[in-house]
Amino acid sequence: MSKNLRARDAGLACGKLPSGPNNAITDVPGVSVGHVTLNEGELRTGVTAILPHGGNLYREKPVAAVHVLNGFGKSAGLVQVEELGAIETPLLLTNTLSVGTCATALVRHAIEHNPDIGRETATVNPVVFECNDGFLNDIQALAVTEQHARSALEAARTDFAVGAVGAGCGMSTFGFKGGIGTASRVIEFDGKAFHFGVLVLSNFGRPGDLRLPDGTVVTPAMAEPAATEKGSIIIVAATDIPLSDRQLRRVIRRSGVGLARLGSFWGHGSGDIALGFTTANIVHHDERAALVSQRLLNEDRIDLLFEAMADTTQEAVLDALVAAGPMTGRSGHHRPGLADALKNLSSTKA
Amino acid sequence: MSKNLRARDAGLACGKLPSGPNNAITDVPGVSVGHVTLNEGELRTGVTAILPHGGNLYREKPVAAVHVLNGFGKSAGLVQVEELGAIETPLLLTNTLSVGTCATALVRHAIEHNPDIGRETATVNPVVFECNDGFLNDIQALAVTEQHARSALEAARTDFAVGAVGAGCGMSTFGFKGGIGTASRVIEFDGKAFHFGVLVLSNFGRPGDLRLPDGTVVTPAMAEPAATEKGSIIIVAATDIPLSDRQLRRVIRRSGVGLARLGSFWGHGSGDIALGFTTANIVHHDERAALVSQRLLNEDRIDLLFEAMADTTQEAVLDALVAAGPMTGRSGHHRPGLADALKNLSSTKA
Amino acid sequence: MSKNLRARDAGLACGKLPSGPNNAITDVPGVSVGHVTLNEGELRTGVTAILPHGGNLYREKPVAAVHVLNGFGKSAGLVQVEELGAIETPLLLTNTLSVGTCATALVRHAIEHNPDIGRETATVNPVVFECNDGFLNDIQALAVTEQHARSALEAARTDFAVGAVGAGCGMSTFGFKGGIGTASRVIEFDGKAFHFGVLVLSNFGRPGDLRLPDGTVVTPAMAEPAATEKGSIIIVAATDIPLSDRQLRRVIRRSGVGLARLGSFWGHGSGDIALGFTTANIVHHDERAALVSQRLLNEDRIDLLFEAMADTTQEAVLDALVAAGPMTGRSGHHRPGLADALKNLSSTKA
Amino acid sequence: MSKNLRARDAGLACGKLPSGPNNAITDVPGVSVGHVTLNEGELRTGVTAILPHGGNLYREKPVAAVHVLNGFGKSAGLVQVEELGAIETPLLLTNTLSVGTCATALVRHAIEHNPDIGRETATVNPVVFECNDGFLNDIQALAVTEQHARSALEAARTDFAVGAVGAGCGMSTFGFKGGIGTASRVIEFDGKAFHFGVLVLSNFGRPGDLRLPDGTVVTPAMAEPAATEKGSIIIVAATDIPLSDRQLRRVIRRSGVGLARLGSFWGHGSGDIALGFTTANIVHHDERAALVSQRLLNEDRIDLLFEAMADTTQEAVLDALVAAGPMTGRSGHHRPGLADALKNLSSTKA
Repeated sequence: MSKNLRARDAGLACGKLPSGPNNAITDVPGVSVGHVTLNEGELRTGVTAILPHGGNLYREKPVAAVHVLNGFGKSAGLVQVEELGAIETPLLLTNTLSVGTCATALVRHAIEHNPDIGRETATVNPVVFECNDGFLNDIQALAVTEQHARSALEAARTDFAVGAVGAGCGMSTFGFKGGIGTASRVIEFDGKAFHFGVLVLSNFGRPGDLRLPDGTVVTPAMAEPAATEKGSIIIVAATDIPLSDRQLRRVIRRSGVGLARLGSFWGHGSGDIALGFTTANIVHHDERAALVSQRLLNEDRIDLLFEAMADTTQEAVLDALVAAGPMTGRSGHHRPGLADALKNLSSTKA
Repeated sequence: MSKNLRARDAGLACGKLPSGPNNAITDVPGVSVGHVTLNEGELRTGVTAILPHGGNLYREKPVAAVHVLNGFGKSAGLVQVEELGAIETPLLLTNTLSVGTCATALVRHAIEHNPDIGRETATVNPVVFECNDGFLNDIQALAVTEQHARSALEAARTDFAVGAVGAGCGMSTFGFKGGIGTASRVIEFDGKAFHFGVLVLSNFGRPGDLRLPDGTVVTPAMAEPAATEKGSIIIVAATDIPLSDRQLRRVIRRSGVGLARLGSFWGHGSGDIALGFTTANIVHHDERAALVSQRLLNEDRIDLLFEAMADTTQEAVLDALVAAGPMTGRSGHHRPGLADALKNLSSTKA
Repeated sequence: MSKNLRARDAGLACGKLPSGPNNAITDVPGVSVGHVTLNEGELRTGVTAILPHGGNLYREKPVAAVHVLNGFGKSAGLVQVEELGAIETPLLLTNTLSVGTCATALVRHAIEHNPDIGRETATVNPVVFECNDGFLNDIQALAVTEQHARSALEAARTDFAVGAVGAGCGMSTFGFKGGIGTASRVIEFDGKAFHFGVLVLSNFGRPGDLRLPDGTVVTPAMAEPAATEKGSIIIVAATDIPLSDRQLRRVIRRSGVGLARLGSFWGHGSGDIALGFTTANIVHHDERAALVSQRLLNEDRIDLLFEAMADTTQEAVLDALVAAGPMTGRSGHHRPGLADALKNLSSTKA
Repeated sequence: MSKNLRARDAGLACGKLPSGPNNAITDVPGVSVGHVTLNEGELRTGVTAILPHGGNLYREKPVAAVHVLNGFGKSAGLVQVEELGAIETPLLLTNTLSVGTCATALVRHAIEHNPDIGRETATVNPVVFECNDGFLNDIQALAVTEQHARSALEAARTDFAVGAVGAGCGMSTFGFKGGIGTASRVIEFDGKAFHFGVLVLSNFGRPGDLRLPDGTVVTPAMAEPAATEKGSIIIVAATDIPLSDRQLRRVIRRSGVGLARLGSFWGHGSGDIALGFTTANIVHHDERAALVSQRLLNEDRIDLLFEAMADTTQEAVLDALVAAGPMTGRSGHHRPGLADALKNLSSTKA
C-alpha cells in the first residue's frame, strides 16, 4: 500500500480504534485484492476483485450478509446471499453496464475449478457490484471484457493500490475524483486480536456536501452546476471475527453511519450497497455431517463492531479521495483531486 | 396459442374465475412474448422475452414489484425494482449461467433506443430471471448469446408458444418435462373488465409430489432416484388493473399458494421468484411535474386478485407440463411428458 | 391429549413423516402449554400460553425467528425477535383487543423473576399473538385480564387440551368452529431422534374453501353469506433441532404451504403470522465470554424440516377443527363443528 | 411553542431548508400533539400523543410507513402498517413497559368512536412507541394508566411543549437530559408550499459522542462510567406532501442520517424506529369505489425530502436536548441539561 497517498497521510483518521498494519481490508488474513485498470482514450474504468480467501470459494463458502442502504443499483447475486447467508465466488466490482460480463466471467472461473457445477451439483451465484462512472468514462463502450475480469482475479494480492485504479478508475465523490479506498481496525476479544477491514468503491455525494472528520466542508473549485446525485457506493467489509449472517448484517448496516458523517444523505439516485463476510465461519459445500458448529460473537459486544464499521467506511472513502489524483476523462470532463484542495485549504487557514 | 396442447385441453382448469380469450399473459393489452429455442446436440435451452408494452420501456416504466419465495436463485435486477417500484426494460428468462449475457443484451438494447443512458441520464436496470436446466441441457456450454436474447425480444408477439420452448426448452417439473406455461383471468371492477395474466418458467418440484387440481398424485414412470429439489420457478404476473407497487407485491406473494396446491413446499435448492407489473400505472422517465397521480385498487377488493394469482400460477404450471412433450437431452437424460402420463392415468381409471 | 378428538381420530393425517408420541408441540422436550378459557354469557375467548422451556426465559433466551405471511394483524414483540433472533418471554395468544393486557402481564411476570429489568439491565420484550374472535365473542368487552394471562402461564403442562379452549375458545375456521390445534413429527439426524412441533391458533379461511388431505372440499351447512376473510392464524413452531435464526425463518415460512393445502390463499384481512424457536440454541443473558458456539443444521438437509413445517401446519389446523365442537356465541352466532360435518360426509359417501 | 428554549435559540439550526412557522411537526396542517407528564416521587415518565388529523382516524387512515433502524425495541402495531401502508389510530409514545396499557387505551378510544369495530367491521391496530426511561424513572412501577393515555389524546393541540414533558419526561440523550423535540421545514413544489415536520422522543447516544452541527463534541460533566447504549429513539415524520407508502419509507429511512450526524452509530441496545405519515393521501375505511386515486411525488424530486428528513431529525434531537433542563430522578440519578453545558462551552471559548 506504500505507493499511494493515504487518508492518514493527509491527517484524515477516523474514530478511536487502532488500525491494522496496512490499514487495509487485506489486514484480514487470507483476503486479497486485484485490479485491472482501463485508462486510455475515452475510457476510465476497470475491474476490482476481492478474494475472501485463497482456497476454492465454491467449496468453502464464507458466511456473508448484504444490506441495501439505497437500492438504485444493479448489483448481481444479492438474493441468494440473503437467503443462504454465504458467498461462493470472489467479489467483482466494475462499472454499471459491465455487471453482466463480470458475472459471466465468474461463472466460467467457478466451472473451471469445479467441473461438477450445473451437472452433479448446483449452479453458482456470481456476486458483482457496480457504480456508474459515466461522467469520466465512456460507459456505453462496454469496454470491460471477461478477460479483464479474469486478470483482476489473477492480480489479487495483499498489497494493493487505492485511488483511481481498477473499478475506481473513473469514479467521482462529492465532486472530487473518487475510486477505491480502504481501512482496517484491530479489535481484541478474550485476549486475542481480530481484524476488521473495509474496501469501498466510492462514487457518491453532491459537490459541496463533503465534510472532513473535523467538520470542515470542502467544495470542489469547479463543480458542474445543479449536480444531482447519480453516483453510488459499494462497501465491502471483511473480518476474521466469528459472526452469524444476522450479526454481519447488523454490522454492515452501520456503513450508513460512515456515509452520513461524510455529508451524504444516501441520495435517491445512488445505489448504496454493503456486503460483509467473515472468514471465521465457513459453509462447506461437501459437508457430510447433518449438524455443524459455528462460533458467534456475544451480541453484547457488537457495539465495537458497529463503531469499527462506521469508522472504516468513513475513512475508506477519505482514503479513496486522497489517493485519487485529479483526472480528465470523457469529453474533457474533469474531477479535481481532494489532496490538492486540502493543500489550498491549509494555506488558506495558515 | 392454438398449436399447443394446453392445460384446459387436459381438463386441468384451476379456480372459479373466468379465463381471458387466450388464457395467456398476453390477454393483458400490450403484453407480448418472444422465444428463441436452442435444441440441438447437447443443448436444450433458450431465451424467453416478456415485453410489458410496445413502447419505450425506459421512458415509460410500468409500476412493478418482486417477491422472493425462496432465494436460492441468481436473477438480476431485483434490488432496484424493490427500491423504486418499477421496471425499465423487457424481462428476459433464460438458464442460470446465461443471466450475465442476457443482462448485457438488455443494456445494449436500452442504449440503442435511449442514447442518453449513462451520459445525460441515469444507467439502466436489466431484469433477467433464470432456472437451472442442467439436467437436460449442457448448461456449462454457456450457449446463449447476446444475439439470441435480441432475437427473443424481436420475436415478441401476443400469440406465443408454450411448453418446451424458449427458456423452457430444457426445464423439468416434478420429474416431468416442464417449461413455459401461461394462464389468465378476467376480473370486473366498477363494471369494467380487466385482465390478469401469468407466465411461468417451470423447473421445480420433486418427482412424486405433483398433485392435480382434483387431488390425484401423478408420479413419473422413471424418475431418477433420491432426487432433491435443484430446480426453480419464475412467475411473472401482468395486469391492467391499477395497483400500487405495494399492492402488486401482496398479490404476487400468492404465487406461493399456487405452488403449494401443486404439491411443492418451495424446496431449499429452488429459486422461486415472482415479479408483477401493471400497465395501468406508468412512471415517466422525463416527468416534468413535481406531483403526479396514480390509480389504485380499493384494497378491500384485493382478495379477488389473490385468488387470481393463486389460480393462474397453479394453472400455468400445469399448462407448461401439458404442453411440453417428453424430451431426451444431455447425456441421454430423459423427462417424460405429463400428457402421456395422464393418458395412462385415464385408462387405468377406466 | 387424550380427552380431545384429534385430527388423526378423524383420519386426517398429513404427510409421510412419523408423528411424535403425543403428536403435539409438547413432544419437544421442555415445551409446555397452558390455557385459560372464558366461556360464559357473550364471552367466548381466552388466553393460551406457550413456554419454550421450564427455566427463566429472560436469562436463557431460545433462538427464534418470525415470518409474516400476511400482516393484517396486531401481534406484539416481533420487531425485536427479527433484530436479535431470540425470544425472552413465554408466548401468549389471545384475542386481538387483549394484546395490550397480555403484554403488560408478561412484563410483570418477567420483572418478578428478574428484578434487575429496567434498572441494572435492559427492559423486556413481551411476545403476544392474536386473532379476532369477534364473530362468536363480545370482543369489545375486553374481558381478558392480566390475571387470566397469569393463570394461563401457571396452567402450562405437557398434556394440554386442543379445540375450543384458551385463546381458541371463540375462533372460526373455514366457516366451522376453529381454535387450538397441534401436531408433531420426529426427525432423525446422524442417528439421533429430534422433535418438531407446531401449535396453531386457527381463525382463518372462507366458508367453502376447506380442502381435506384427500382433496374433498367441505362446506359448512349454514355459513353466513358473502363472508370475507376477517380471520387470522398464528402458527408457533418448536424444535430441539439446532438451527440458526435464519434457518428457523426459512422453515416457518413453509407454514404458508400448509395453509395453501387447506384451501387458503392468505386472505387480505387475515393476520397470518408464524414464529419458530429452537431449544437447542440458547442466548445467555449474562454471558461473559466474548465468543460463543452454536450448532446449526447442514442446510442441505433442511428440506426435511420444510416438509415437517408444511405437514404439521396443515394437520394442526385440521386438529383444531376436529377437536372443536359446534358453538353458539355472541348474539346467537353459530359455528358448526367439522367432526359432525365429516360424519354426514361419510354417510353420504357410503 | 413559545415558552420552551428551542434548538435555534441556542444557535443549533441544521441544514439549509427554511423552517416552518413554529419549526414544529404541528406546522403540518391538521397535526396536533398532547402530553401527560408524571413527575413526582421516583416517577419521571409520561405519555405523548400525536394526532395526524382532527377527524376519525379509523375512518380516514393516513398513508404511512415504518422503518426500523435498529430493532432492539418493543413498539406495537408496526406489522400492519408495513402490510397496508396506513395508520388508523393516533400515535402514542411512552416508556417501554407501558406499551400494553397505551395500546389498550387506543383500542377503547377507537371503539368509542367506531362502535362497529370487532362486530360489523374489522378490529383496530393501535400504534404505540416507546423508549426506556429507567435511568431517571422507576419504570418497574408501571405508573402509566389508560387514563393518562386518554388525557394525552385530549390534550392534543398545535402549540405544544418540548423537552422533559410527556413521554420525554425521564429520557436521556448522550448523557444529557433528553426528551421531546421537534423541527419542521417548508418545501415548495410546483409553486405551492408544503410542510414537513418531525417529532422525536430522544433517549439514545453514549456520553461523549454528541457532536453539534459545527463539529464540536460536547461531553456531560459527570456521566456514569462505562455507559453502554441502552436507550432508543422514536422519530415520527408528518407531511402534507403527497407520497406513496414506498416513498414515505424511503424518506424516513434518512432519519438514520440525522442520528449519525449527531454522533450516534445506532447502538446495539437502542430501539431506533421511524414512522412517517402523509395527510395528503387518505385511505377511506368505508370506500365504495373499486378504484381510487392517489397523488405521488415525482421521485426525481425526493432528494429534497431526504434532506429535510436528515435535517429535521438532527435538529429535533438538539431541540429536545436544549429544551430539557437538568433533572434528578430515581435513586438520585442525575442528567445535566445541554443548555447549561453550552453556556460553559461558550465561556470557555471566549
